[in-house]
Amino acid sequence: MASLPEALSELIHRLSRLPGIGPRAAERMALAIIDKNPAEIAALADALNDAVARVTHCPHCGCLSQDNRPCRVCDDNARDRSIICVVESPLDSIALEKGGGYHGLYHVLGGAISPLSGVLPEDLRISELLARVGDGVVSELILATNASPEGEATALYIRQELDELHERRAAAGSSESLARIRVTRLARGLPSGSQLDYTDSATLQSALDNRTEL
Amino acid sequence: MASLPEALSELIHRLSRLPGIGPRAAERMALAIIDKNPAEIAALADALNDAVARVTHCPHCGCLSQDNRPCRVCDDNARDRSIICVVESPLDSIALEKGGGYHGLYHVLGGAISPLSGVLPEDLRISELLARVGDGVVSELILATNASPEGEATALYIRQELDELHERRAAAGSSESLARIRVTRLARGLPSGSQLDYTDSATLQSALDNRTEL
Repeated sequence: MASLPEALSELIHRLSRLPGIGPRAAERMALAIIDKNPAEIAALADALNDAVARVTHCPHCGCLSQDNRPCRVCDDNARDRSIICVVESPLDSIALEKGGGYHGLYHVLGGAISPLSGVLPEDLRISELLARVGDGVVSELILATNASPEGEATALYIRQELDELHERRAAAGSSESLARIRVTRLARGLPSGSQLDYTDSATLQSALDNRTEL
Repeated sequence: MASLPEALSELIHRLSRLPGIGPRAAERMALAIIDKNPAEIAALADALNDAVARVTHCPHCGCLSQDNRPCRVCDDNARDRSIICVVESPLDSIALEKGGGYHGLYHVLGGAISPLSGVLPEDLRISELLARVGDGVVSELILATNASPEGEATALYIRQELDELHERRAAAGSSESLARIRVTRLARGLPSGSQLDYTDSATLQSALDNRTEL
């Protein structure tokens, strides 16, 4: 809009480039921002710069961390180091942490295998995962990739890679540690709170196939 | 969430204090922000600081402006200086400018009279408006306050103040310039695109009362 001061137009433009913020929402936010306490907006600007400069990936698991330090999960001595939950992105581990029911470690792959989008196995952190698995401490690997074709393919690929690693080690005479590793994946079934008549048929079929004793 | 890096939690906290941004939206925005190009986020932080420091009110009309300069409307020689549209807030003038059909000037009151909320006539920029009106250039005043009880009361108050000013000037023998000023207000009626059966009765009554020849 020609009638707005440049500094305000620039702010609206910058805000509208954020995900989920359309031009109308950006305008409303910008107009509210200039009415706010300047100290509060300076704190927001600092928080933006700080987050971009300091949020990094954990050198062990690839989850979000700060200043290149290990993340809070890897740093927590109370976590069970014998279980690794393999996820596609750091956001997946945040979602799992919210539940609070998982007490093992994570491993972030950084995506899922998708040849059509140009993501090949060597683009993911799979070799790092195999190195962690071979340390003799890990006893279970939960493949928590997405329930999408790419996520499924990635889980199967990791399963195969583990089998091959096991065979190579067996040939070299040192297979004990890999042999006792359980490889699991997340259950498929009805989401909690769902209604049967609103559930898609693939989900219903999984729920039938994986039915449990009551 | 305990598992998030501090710099990220701080950013989520700051974002969630913006109007219209809940905790969930703030989290989604923050996670997207740290994935963005750092230069782009630095530009957003600069735009925030810049907007708070530089966006000011126009010394003439009170609309949004920059660096204490006159606003773009007051600065535009193509605008009709004989018409002043009186609005409650700078946002109202922005809404009117979007239509693009108004070519006069504005005057921002800074609110509406509301004794219950402690806003009295002397808290508004009414004396500044009367000073502008008395300059001999203005020929029409459009009272574009909100269609709320407070907006109505404010428009009536300004109408009365103008009449009193006119009488005082007449007593002093210099009433010509004020006598020929038209005082109008925005039309009341059906909003464009509305359906009769969804329209409230007060709006329908205004539309009936102000019906026009076809």
